[in-house]
Amino acid sequence: MSELLAQRLCAELTKIVLVDPHTHINPHSPASKTLADIMGYHYYTELAHSSGMPKSHIEEPGLDPKTKVGRLVESLKNLDNTVQVSWLVELCRKFFGFTDERITTSNWESLYDNAAAKMAEKDWEDQCLKQSGIERVFLTNDFDDPLTGFDTKRYIPCLRTDELVFHFTNPAVRERLARATGIEPTSPEKIRQAIGKLFEHFVRHGVKACAISLPPSFAPRTPTSGDQDERQFSAGFLDPESESKGIGQNWIFWTIAEFCAEFKLPFDLMIGVNRRVYPTGVFQGQDLFDQRVSLIQYKDLFNTFPQVTFPVSVLAQASNQELVSYSWIFPNVVTNAHWWYSNIPAYIELDTKARLQAVPRNKQIGYYSDMYKLEFAWPKFSMYRQCLARVLAQDFVVARRWSEEEALALGRQVLRGNVESIFNVD
Amino acid sequence: MSELLAQRLCAELTKIVLVDPHTHINPHSPASKTLADIMGYHYYTELAHSSGMPKSHIEEPGLDPKTKVGRLVESLKNLDNTVQVSWLVELCRKFFGFTDERITTSNWESLYDNAAAKMAEKDWEDQCLKQSGIERVFLTNDFDDPLTGFDTKRYIPCLRTDELVFHFTNPAVRERLARATGIEPTSPEKIRQAIGKLFEHFVRHGVKACAISLPPSFAPRTPTSGDQDERQFSAGFLDPESESKGIGQNWIFWTIAEFCAEFKLPFDLMIGVNRRVYPTGVFQGQDLFDQRVSLIQYKDLFNTFPQVTFPVSVLAQASNQELVSYSWIFPNVVTNAHWWYSNIPAYIELDTKARLQAVPRNKQIGYYSDMYKLEFAWPKFSMYRQCLARVLAQDFVVARRWSEEEALALGRQVLRGNVESIFNVD
Amino acid sequence: MSELLAQRLCAELTKIVLVDPHTHINPHSPASKTLADIMGYHYYTELAHSSGMPKSHIEEPGLDPKTKVGRLVESLKNLDNTVQVSWLVELCRKFFGFTDERITTSNWESLYDNAAAKMAEKDWEDQCLKQSGIERVFLTNDFDDPLTGFDTKRYIPCLRTDELVFHFTNPAVRERLARATGIEPTSPEKIRQAIGKLFEHFVRHGVKACAISLPPSFAPRTPTSGDQDERQFSAGFLDPESESKGIGQNWIFWTIAEFCAEFKLPFDLMIGVNRRVYPTGVFQGQDLFDQRVSLIQYKDLFNTFPQVTFPVSVLAQASNQELVSYSWIFPNVVTNAHWWYSNIPAYIELDTKARLQAVPRNKQIGYYSDMYKLEFAWPKFSMYRQCLARVLAQDFVVARRWSEEEALALGRQVLRGNVESIFNVD
Repeated sequence: MSELLAQRLCAELTKIVLVDPHTHINPHSPASKTLADIMGYHYYTELAHSSGMPKSHIEEPGLDPKTKVGRLVESLKNLDNTVQVSWLVELCRKFFGFTDERITTSNWESLYDNAAAKMAEKDWEDQCLKQSGIERVFLTNDFDDPLTGFDTKRYIPCLRTDELVFHFTNPAVRERLARATGIEPTSPEKIRQAIGKLFEHFVRHGVKACAISLPPSFAPRTPTSGDQDERQFSAGFLDPESESKGIGQNWIFWTIAEFCAEFKLPFDLMIGVNRRVYPTGVFQGQDLFDQRVSLIQYKDLFNTFPQVTFPVSVLAQASNQELVSYSWIFPNVVTNAHWWYSNIPAYIELDTKARLQAVPRNKQIGYYSDMYKLEFAWPKFSMYRQCLARVLAQDFVVARRWSEEEALALGRQVLRGNVESIFNVD
Repeated sequence: MSELLAQRLCAELTKIVLVDPHTHINPHSPASKTLADIMGYHYYTELAHSSGMPKSHIEEPGLDPKTKVGRLVESLKNLDNTVQVSWLVELCRKFFGFTDERITTSNWESLYDNAAAKMAEKDWEDQCLKQSGIERVFLTNDFDDPLTGFDTKRYIPCLRTDELVFHFTNPAVRERLARATGIEPTSPEKIRQAIGKLFEHFVRHGVKACAISLPPSFAPRTPTSGDQDERQFSAGFLDPESESKGIGQNWIFWTIAEFCAEFKLPFDLMIGVNRRVYPTGVFQGQDLFDQRVSLIQYKDLFNTFPQVTFPVSVLAQASNQELVSYSWIFPNVVTNAHWWYSNIPAYIELDTKARLQAVPRNKQIGYYSDMYKLEFAWPKFSMYRQCLARVLAQDFVVARRWSEEEALALGRQVLRGNVESIFNVD
Repeated sequence: MSELLAQRLCAELTKIVLVDPHTHINPHSPASKTLADIMGYHYYTELAHSSGMPKSHIEEPGLDPKTKVGRLVESLKNLDNTVQVSWLVELCRKFFGFTDERITTSNWESLYDNAAAKMAEKDWEDQCLKQSGIERVFLTNDFDDPLTGFDTKRYIPCLRTDELVFHFTNPAVRERLARATGIEPTSPEKIRQAIGKLFEHFVRHGVKACAISLPPSFAPRTPTSGDQDERQFSAGFLDPESESKGIGQNWIFWTIAEFCAEFKLPFDLMIGVNRRVYPTGVFQGQDLFDQRVSLIQYKDLFNTFPQVTFPVSVLAQASNQELVSYSWIFPNVVTNAHWWYSNIPAYIELDTKARLQAVPRNKQIGYYSDMYKLEFAWPKFSMYRQCLARVLAQDFVVARRWSEEEALALGRQVLRGNVESIFNVD
C-alpha cells in the first residue's frame, strides 16, 4: 500500500524540471564522450581500488578509454551491491539502450560502443539534459575562472573558495590571484581588494553562490585587529609551516563572508572533509572525515552575518541532527542536500525524515547531484526522489493524513522551489 | 497489516491515564487563556522567526494577543510540515472544534474566538486534563518557590537547580538563596546548609524529583578538600570571570547529588544544552547543542551515588546509544523520554526501538511533555504513542510474536508504571 | 508482502553452514553443562543487576548452579523485552524442548533439568554445532596459550593481544611472555623477538587472525627511533604511572602490526571500549564507551600497512558511517560484524543497510557471535539473519528489483564467503 503510494508520488516528482544547485560540471565539456568518462568518476575508480584492483592498473599512464573501462568492469562483480554502481546501470539503461541488470565482462563492449555512438550525437548535451529533466546547473568555478565561452544562464557560476582560504600559502595560488585581479596580495588589505575584484567579476557573470568545503577542525571566529597586523603577515598568511597559519585562513574566510554579505550571495558551507587521509589512493579517492565536528564551531559566523544565507552540507551523517536544529533556530542556516559519504539511501532517508519533520519547508534544499558529467543527474536525482517519495508517503500521507497533492507540493518545494528562492534563480 | 496493528495498539495506549513526569507548567496558571498563550510557545515563535519573520515583529512590546496570533499565522504556510505545527493543529481539533487541516490567514480568527470562549470556561483546566488523559503533572520549580497556593497532589513539585549550579556567581541568585533559607551562602559550608534547607522545604511539599540541565562540557567529579578551601572561595564560587569558577559549579552540583541521596530523590539529568548560541533569537529560541558529549563524563557521579536514581535525558540523538548502554549497565541510570531537539518522530522511533530492545523494561520512562501549558500534553503524548505503537507492532508483535496484550503491557509500563515506581508516585 | 519475502529469504539463509569468525569459546569446554553456564553469560548477570538485583546476590561465592539460575530467573520479568533474553528463550526452545514463550519462576526448574539432561549427552558439542549450522569457530587465545589438546581445524586459533599492548606494565604479563618464549622482554628489541616467537607458535597451530580491543583514546602512530631508546625503556614500557607509558603501548601495537604483515595475518581491530567504567559491576559487566572516537586515529596504521587486512569492529553505532566510508576507500579496511552494544536489531539493521549500499561486497564480514558457549551461535546468528533478510528484501529485491537468488547470493557472501576469503579459511 504505502509502497505503491510511494511509487505514485515518485512518478509525479519525476515530472518536475529541476535546477541542480551544486555540480562540478565543466561547462566547456559538460557531457561524457565515452563510457570511460562515466566510469572514470571517482566513485568507480575508488571502489574498484578498494575492492582489490591496484591503483596502477586503473591509473596507468596512456591507458586508452576502452581498455580502462574493460579493466574497471572486472571489478563490478565486487561492487554491484553499491548504490553507486546502481547509478551506472540506471544511466546506461536510461540513455544507452542497455537492457541488462548488470554490466559484466560479457556485455560491456557493446554497451561501450552503443554509448559512444549515442554520446557522439551533436546534440547529446541537450538530449541528456532534457531526458534528465534538468534545466539549469550550478558550476564549481575556480576563483580565477574567466567565466566566458559558455551560456551562464544554463551553467550558473558559483565561486569556489577553498584554494583562497586553505592554499593561500601556496605561491601558485597567490600568483593566480594576482593575475586574475591585477593586485599583488601582499597584505591583508591587498587581499581584501583582490577578493573584492573576484566578486565583482563573478557577479558580472551571474554568479548565484559562493562555496567552500571545510575540514572538521575549522572553527571560524571574528578576526581581531591583530590578525591583520602586517608584521605578522608572513607567519599568518604565507608560511605553510607556521603555527599561525590558521590566522590567515580565518581572515580570508571571514573576508569572503563579508563579500557574500555585500554582494547578497548565499555562502555554501560543506562541512567536515579531511583531505588526503589515504594519500596513495586513486585520484579524488583519498579524502575521508572525522565525525567529531559540531556546527557550534560556526556560531560566531552565523551570528555575525544574519544577512547571509548559509546552505550547509554536512559530511558525517551524525551531523544531520545538528544541521536540522541549527536550521530550525537560525534564520540564515538552511539544509543543503546529502553530501558524498552521506549520499546513500540509508542516510538520505533518515536525514530527510528529520528535516521534513522539523525544519521550515522554505529552508530545505532537497538535493544536488555533485556530478562531474551530465549523465549522472538522472540516476542520482532518481535515488533521491525515491527516498523523498517514501518519506512523503509514510510520514505525511499515511501518518499525518495529508492529501497526495499536499505531499507533492512539499516535494516540489524542496526539489525546485527552494532552489529558486534561496539562490535567487528565476 | 502492521500499520493497522499499530493503530489498534495506539488506540489502547490512549486509554491509559498518565502522570506527566516533566513539564514547565505554572500551577497558578496551568492552562491557556487565548491562542496567543498557545502560539507563544517558543516552538512557534522560533520557527516563525527561522522561516523569515523578524524578531521585532513577533516580540513587539505591547502587542495584543490577537494581533500576535494573526502575525504568527502568516508564518504557518512555511511551517505546516513541522511536527510542532501538527501539535498545534491537533490540539485545536481536539479542544476547540477546529475541523480544518491547516490554520491559515482565512480561518484563524474564528478559531481564535472559539478557543478563547472554550478556555474562558471556569473548569477549562479540569476539562483539558480530563480530555488529555492526564492525572498528575510534574513541575519545574525555582529553588526559592514557596510551593504554596496550589494542589501539590496534582502539580508535583520538582526542584530545578540550574541556577544554583551555573548562576551562583550572580549576586541576585545568592540573595534569593539567602532570602529563601535565612542563610547567607558565604562559604561552602553555608551553601551546603542553605541547600539542605531547600531540600527540607521541597520535601515538606511533596517534591518527587530534583532536576538540572547541563552543558555538553560539564563533567562532574568528586570534589577535593581543596575545592572548599575558603581562601579560594571568591575565585571558585563568586567570580564569573574566574578560571576556577568550574570548582564552585562542580561543588554545588555534587552537594545537590548528596542531598538527593539523603532525601531519596531521583536526580533528573538533562544533558547537552548550550545556552544562548543565537543570543539575538526570540525568547527561549536561542539554545542549541554540541553533539560531542559523552556519558563517560558522568562516570564518577554514577559510581559515587549508587543509591540515587538518575533519569537521564540527552539532547543529541547521537547520545541515545550511550544512554541505552549506560542504562543497561548502571543500575541507577534510567532512560528519560525524548528531549527537545530529539523530540520528533524520526528520532523518537529510532531511540524507542533501541531502548525497548536493550534496557530493562522497569528502567524506561517513555515520555514527558515538557509543556508550558496544559493543552500540549494531548498532541505531544499522541505523537509519542504513535511512535511507541509502531515499535511495539513491528519489533514485538510481528518480529518476536508477542501477543498484543503483552505488547500493551510493555507500553503501559513505560508510559505510566515506571513513572510511578521510579519517582515513587502512588 | 515484504515481510513474507524477508521470511522466505531468512529461511534460505538459515541453510548456510557457517564459520563463526570471532568467539570466546574455550575449546576444552566449548558447550554448556547446565543452564547456569548459559545464564551466567554477562548479558544476563549485568542486566539482572541493572534491573535491581544486588551483585552479591548474583556472585555469592559457592553458589550452586541451580540456585544461581533460580535467582537470575527472578529478574527475567524485568528483562523479557531485551533481545538478549530473546536469545535465551530461542536457544531453550531450539535445543531443550522448551515450549513456552517466557522463562518464569514457575517453569524454569523443569527447563533446568531438561537442559542438564540434554547437555549431559556425550555428543552434545557435536549436536549443538550441527543444529546451529556452525562448522568452524574462531577462538580468542591468550598470547601464551599452548594451543594443544583440541582440534584446531574446528577451533581456529586467534592471537589476542590486548594484554601485550595495554598490560605490559604488569610484571605478571611480562613473566608470562618470558615463559612462553624463553626471552626476557627487557628491551624493545627483546620484546620484538619475543612477539615474533609468539607469532611463529601461533602460525604453527593454524592461527587465522590476530585481534585486539582498543580504547576510544588510542591513536597509533609510526614509532620514532626515540621510542625504542633503551634509556627511556622503564618510563615508556614498564611504569604504569608514567606519563610516557603510551610510548610502549604504541610501540608494541605497531610491532604486532608488523608481524601481521610478515605472517600475512588479518588484524582484527575492535575499536572503542572503555574498561571498568563501572568497577563495582558484575563480572564482565563493567565496560562502556565514549562515542567521541574516529577512525582517523588509525590513518597512519592503515596507510603504513597496505598489505595487512584490518577487519574493523566499532562499539559505537555512531562510528558505523566512518567504518562504511573507510572501508569504501581503504583497500585494507573491511567491516566486521556488529559488536556488543551495537549488537541489537535496531543498530544491526541500520548498519547493514549502509554497508550493503556502499561497501564492496567482498569486504564485508556480516556477523560473528562473540559467544562464550556454543549454544549462543544459534540465536545470535538468527537475529542477524532476520535483520539481513529484511534489508535484502527491502533494499535489494523491492527497491532495486534484484531477484531473490541474487539477493541470497549477496547474503551468502557476507555470511560465509567473505569469512573464507578474508581469513584465508578453506
